[in-house]
Amino acid sequence: MKLLYPTSLELRPDAFTLPGVSALPYDVAAPLPAAHEDAEVLVTWGNSAEMLRGAAARMTRLQWVQSLAAGPNDVLKAGFPAHVRVTSGSGLHDHTVAEHTLGLLLVAARRFHEMRDAQRQRRWPGHLGGLQPDRPKGAFRTLQDARVLIWGFGSIGQRLAPLLTMLGAEVRGVARSAGERAGFPVFAADALPELLPETDALVMILPSSPETRHALSAALLAHLPRHAWVVNVGRGDTLDEGALVAALQQRRLGGAALDVFETEPLPESSPLWALENVIISPHAAGGRPQGAEALIRDNVARFLAGEPLRNLVAR
Amino acid sequence: MKLLYPTSLELRPDAFTLPGVSALPYDVAAPLPAAHEDAEVLVTWGNSAEMLRGAAARMTRLQWVQSLAAGPNDVLKAGFPAHVRVTSGSGLHDHTVAEHTLGLLLVAARRFHEMRDAQRQRRWPGHLGGLQPDRPKGAFRTLQDARVLIWGFGSIGQRLAPLLTMLGAEVRGVARSAGERAGFPVFAADALPELLPETDALVMILPSSPETRHALSAALLAHLPRHAWVVNVGRGDTLDEGALVAALQQRRLGGAALDVFETEPLPESSPLWALENVIISPHAAGGRPQGAEALIRDNVARFLAGEPLRNLVAR
Ligand SMILES: NC(=O)c1ccc[n+]([C@@H]2O[C@H](COP(=O)([O-])OP(=O)(O)OC[C@H]3O[C@@H](n4cnc5c(N)ncnc54)[C@H](OP(=O)(O)O)[C@@H]3O)[C@@H](O)[C@H]2O)c1
Ligand SMILES: NC(=O)c1ccc[n+]([C@@H]2O[C@H](COP(=O)([O-])OP(=O)(O)OC[C@H]3O[C@@H](n4cnc5c(N)ncnc54)[C@H](OP(=O)(O)O)[C@@H]3O)[C@@H](O)[C@H]2O)c1
Repeated sequence: MKLLYPTSLELRPDAFTLPGVSALPYDVAAPLPAAHEDAEVLVTWGNSAEMLRGAAARMTRLQWVQSLAAGPNDVLKAGFPAHVRVTSGSGLHDHTVAEHTLGLLLVAARRFHEMRDAQRQRRWPGHLGGLQPDRPKGAFRTLQDARVLIWGFGSIGQRLAPLLTMLGAEVRGVARSAGERAGFPVFAADALPELLPETDALVMILPSSPETRHALSAALLAHLPRHAWVVNVGRGDTLDEGALVAALQQRRLGGAALDVFETEPLPESSPLWALENVIISPHAAGGRPQGAEALIRDNVARFLAGEPLRNLVAR
Repeated sequence: MKLLYPTSLELRPDAFTLPGVSALPYDVAAPLPAAHEDAEVLVTWGNSAEMLRGAAARMTRLQWVQSLAAGPNDVLKAGFPAHVRVTSGSGLHDHTVAEHTLGLLLVAARRFHEMRDAQRQRRWPGHLGGLQPDRPKGAFRTLQDARVLIWGFGSIGQRLAPLLTMLGAEVRGVARSAGERAGFPVFAADALPELLPETDALVMILPSSPETRHALSAALLAHLPRHAWVVNVGRGDTLDEGALVAALQQRRLGGAALDVFETEPLPESSPLWALENVIISPHAAGGRPQGAEALIRDNVARFLAGEPLRNLVAR
């Protein structure tokens, strides 16, 4: 079996070269060399859209694409034939995305963005320091006792949740099905109209799919308290950006900390850049797969044994 | 026994009004009313320097000052007679300062300050997002596997340490005496020349005292790796600010995230404002005592029983 692995990250190929496997490196930015068209397995990480389209058209013996991204939307839209299985890198980004999300929540709550703006003007923002009210009602000023709702309570959400608990937050989740997960109460999306009014920070970690498009709609945004923050580290299209902008402009929301956008890079014309209490992060939460070799190895073993693959993406 | 409590924070006086105690509110910004000069106990929080000087001169029956600050330097320099005991609010700020410190560390590591600067220019900082090296050597880019040294491993430090551990950091402490504390290895200050070269982030949480003045000196700064960050949430004078500025200007240090300064508010003329990789927070880590009533009540009971007071400050 011939497997192509990307040189866009450091990988030790012997970690997943099981007997019968020939693992070869390739450049994700260049067109696939003709000599590689016969590979059965393609591992992807940061491939150009053009490279993926070419691979989809030319890799006639391809049976399986292992993406290292948690959300392999690039692979899904490249035109691979329906019989080619796609598996994701879900699990490889849990720690890095959880850390970044915690950072975004703390920037918002402890107002480091406002401090930075003052610093650039050589201005001491005295109102942000000194004596402060402790956990004031109707404001998101700390994670302690904050009610955090994580919409998309999968691999990343479950890594993030205990970090927030340790800082004193009350955490609940929303997923496709209700029921306790990892010790946290999880609800289905139909409960959102009841959950959102009791939320100080809504963290979105949804994948992009036809079902999740504009999941956070104008109607749902209207259920959040005026002081609530929205944090999005999933995918930009899971949130109606126009509705978010309107809510922020009309001060119906505390703020938004966004790592993902409907269009990336965020166009210079976007009103998000200059809105008060909007924090813009350039899709920087993940981008550093951890444990990729173990996942590839496990799935290669499963593939060779004809067993179900891990992280199989329905399509 | 007459006790004066401040109106600068919300306090329920019945929580500490034990039998035989008469608790009366007072304004920390105004001179002490003559009718209050006979009180035996003064609780302080955010008092003006003038008010404290007046109290020190005029409260002839005063026996004990309970500050709600973890570092009651204002009380110590107000001129209270030597027989007046001073107790601090150590323990009341552990959570709030730990949260803020974690925030400063994450801003530094995940470069939210750089993202903010880009945002103000409507510029997508593409180099901070997308594909990134995972835990690169010679850079402070995540708390995961980061070597964090907490100098001043007291009440706040011991609250902060497990939060950092949960994010994957290796935490060590420095205090006046060596030995394991709360499960963490703690060293005495003479070990610093060996500890600092193995440090990615140095967190200072020292009190201000003659012994700690400029504890982090030019000589010790020189032991830190070039990529290391310094975070100070203790007191400004525990760090030689001039030496820090020089190290930053000469790029001998990764950066500094500072909540406390030798002079506060930080003067407009300070070079710190505009140095790259300096993050300025306006003494905003604490400022929100938690559990003040329980501490006051406990110490009032001890005072009435003639037992040793908690948080007694040596002077
Ligand atoms: N910003 C970044 O740098 C970055 C990095 C990595 C990943 N991501 C994004 O984060 C997403 C989540 O990653 P993950 O590894 O946590 O994925 P995951 O383990 O598959 O979890 C996804 C969660 O979303 C829920 N969900 C999916 N569709 C839903 C719907 N229609 N309604 C309600 N809930 C729904 C799932 O519910 P069930 O559990 O009930 O199925 C699950 O809880 C990825 O798809 C990717 O787009 C972003
Ligand atoms: N930025 C803010 O808003 C804010 C808020 C609250 C407090 N603070 C500051 O934080 C300081 C620490 O608070 P805390 O409640 O954690 O105090 P703490 O419990 O008294 O701890 C102080 C720590 O510093 C160590 N230390 C003291 N002198 C030292 C010396 N000469 N050399 C080495 N270590 C020394 C102590 O060592 P031992 O344990 O061995 O005695 C102890 O570990 C306060 O004094 C205050 O100035 C700042």
